[in-house]
Amino acid sequence: MDRNFADELLDAIAEKGSPVCVGLDPVFEKLPETLRRDTPEEVEQVEMLEEFCEGVLEAVAPFVPAVKIQSAYFERYGPAGVGLYNRMIARAIDMDLLVIGDVKRNDIGPTAQAYAQGHLRALQTSIGPTPDVANAITVNGYFGADGLTPFIDMAAAESRGVFVLVRTSNPSAGQVQDFADANGSKLYEHVARLVARIGDGEGLIGESGYSCVGAVVGATWPDQARQLREIMPRQIFLVPGFGAQGATADDCAASFKADGTGAIVNSSRGVIFAFWQERFASVDWKQAVAVAAEEFAAQIRKAVFK
Amino acid sequence: MDRNFADELLDAIAEKGSPVCVGLDPVFEKLPETLRRDTPEEVEQVEMLEEFCEGVLEAVAPFVPAVKIQSAYFERYGPAGVGLYNRMIARAIDMDLLVIGDVKRNDIGPTAQAYAQGHLRALQTSIGPTPDVANAITVNGYFGADGLTPFIDMAAAESRGVFVLVRTSNPSAGQVQDFADANGSKLYEHVARLVARIGDGEGLIGESGYSCVGAVVGATWPDQARQLREIMPRQIFLVPGFGAQGATADDCAASFKADGTGAIVNSSRGVIFAFWQERFASVDWKQAVAVAAEEFAAQIRKAVFK
Repeated sequence: MDRNFADELLDAIAEKGSPVCVGLDPVFEKLPETLRRDTPEEVEQVEMLEEFCEGVLEAVAPFVPAVKIQSAYFERYGPAGVGLYNRMIARAIDMDLLVIGDVKRNDIGPTAQAYAQGHLRALQTSIGPTPDVANAITVNGYFGADGLTPFIDMAAAESRGVFVLVRTSNPSAGQVQDFADANGSKLYEHVARLVARIGDGEGLIGESGYSCVGAVVGATWPDQARQLREIMPRQIFLVPGFGAQGATADDCAASFKADGTGAIVNSSRGVIFAFWQERFASVDWKQAVAVAAEEFAAQIRKAVFK
Repeated sequence: MDRNFADELLDAIAEKGSPVCVGLDPVFEKLPETLRRDTPEEVEQVEMLEEFCEGVLEAVAPFVPAVKIQSAYFERYGPAGVGLYNRMIARAIDMDLLVIGDVKRNDIGPTAQAYAQGHLRALQTSIGPTPDVANAITVNGYFGADGLTPFIDMAAAESRGVFVLVRTSNPSAGQVQDFADANGSKLYEHVARLVARIGDGEGLIGESGYSCVGAVVGATWPDQARQLREIMPRQIFLVPGFGAQGATADDCAASFKADGTGAIVNSSRGVIFAFWQERFASVDWKQAVAVAAEEFAAQIRKAVFK
């Protein structure tokens, strides 16, 4: 049995001592005032974002095993923003952080394969492969198995991972995901069963017993998380929704097994924009982000290992 | 009532005489031999793709009102590929083609807004807005209304459009999309009702009576298309699946209203790689693409207006 992305992630969690990741969701209007300047060229905001993202990575790296980089905030600036997205992946890997590329890609077979090539595989150059590839990405399962398989095959071949959206953390998630069949079984459970089945495929389970195919399960729905933990015993849960979106550390703990494995909790805004909190008014912004990351890691550690 | 994306699309269809678009899905291995050369720098394939894409746009522009540019085949090359994606949008608009950016983006509210900014709004520069923005994009509705609204608000503000995935054309689509409730009503119908409701919002309906919020409805399921036509009277259907994926022109016709409006049929591989067909063996590749585009437009015209 080969080591897979889940093994790598569990090792990194053990090393840093807490199953958390920080979400890199940079927004120009929320940058520290010292980093922001007006410019008639909107694309120049990318340079300011770069300084901010570098600072955040340095501030959080001692406390968290992984970062989740949200592609949307980079795509917002077109190709220049995507360039920054890739540089930040390389930078985070350079700091020994695991990187989850939050891209939520999805399409039919051949097109899904092109996405998988773009996001889970290095480009070849005359001096070797490029270093700017995420260790795992998020994907959307609306197309069923043949839209997921190209991502999973690529992840397995490249020792990387995918997290399939099962139950998202937003208020209207239930409008689609709670659609129920005649037995009261809901769409998100149906998707979870599909993910569990596909994720059990040959060569996908690592030494730890977990698959390289994980699931996104929002922390804002702890009852569903407990139920999904039963349906998907071999999936690592990527858990968004802590803090700014309203979920508590105890809500997040619902996604873990009794031994404290099985999930990684994300916090984005609550950490990377912590310097806007009044208590940090006289503190350097990077210091504020570091303190918030350390507190976040401690809170989740305490809730999971109590 | 303001003119919207649907009005623009219907006018463009009337002008070119057929409700079709060609999908730009460039794949290095399938390029004409005259355009391909080996290189140890994989990213240099982007230059070869550029020559191909330019040629395809020139070949099809006389026959089709719109092109659908598939982001995956560009993202496959990282930031350099995304640069080409944006240049091809600008180039197509320059040729008076409408552009559908096939990106299938999706996320929770603030993140969906960042995607909407990136894909439905021009960046500001000191000499005005950038020209490389698609007229419409595809999105995935798994997050429910609050994941769709940011895209729709941006589309309305920018006189652009969105197409929400309802029923996709791939073989396993039913694994998720046919999940049925106690009344036998399926998930894709449920999503269709959501799209119809949201798409009827204030300011979204144009002079033609169609919304700027459309739907993706695969041609490979004509019975479902007829049923979805009833559920979504004000949605323009973007119809993939013709040709290479197995749907006939008559299958595609199921997505149209009796007056011949209400849908636009896409063909990708069948047109842009037509030069590999034996009948075109002694024809210049661009000429083959032009002939295939003209035939495709004629076939759909005949099936819809019979």
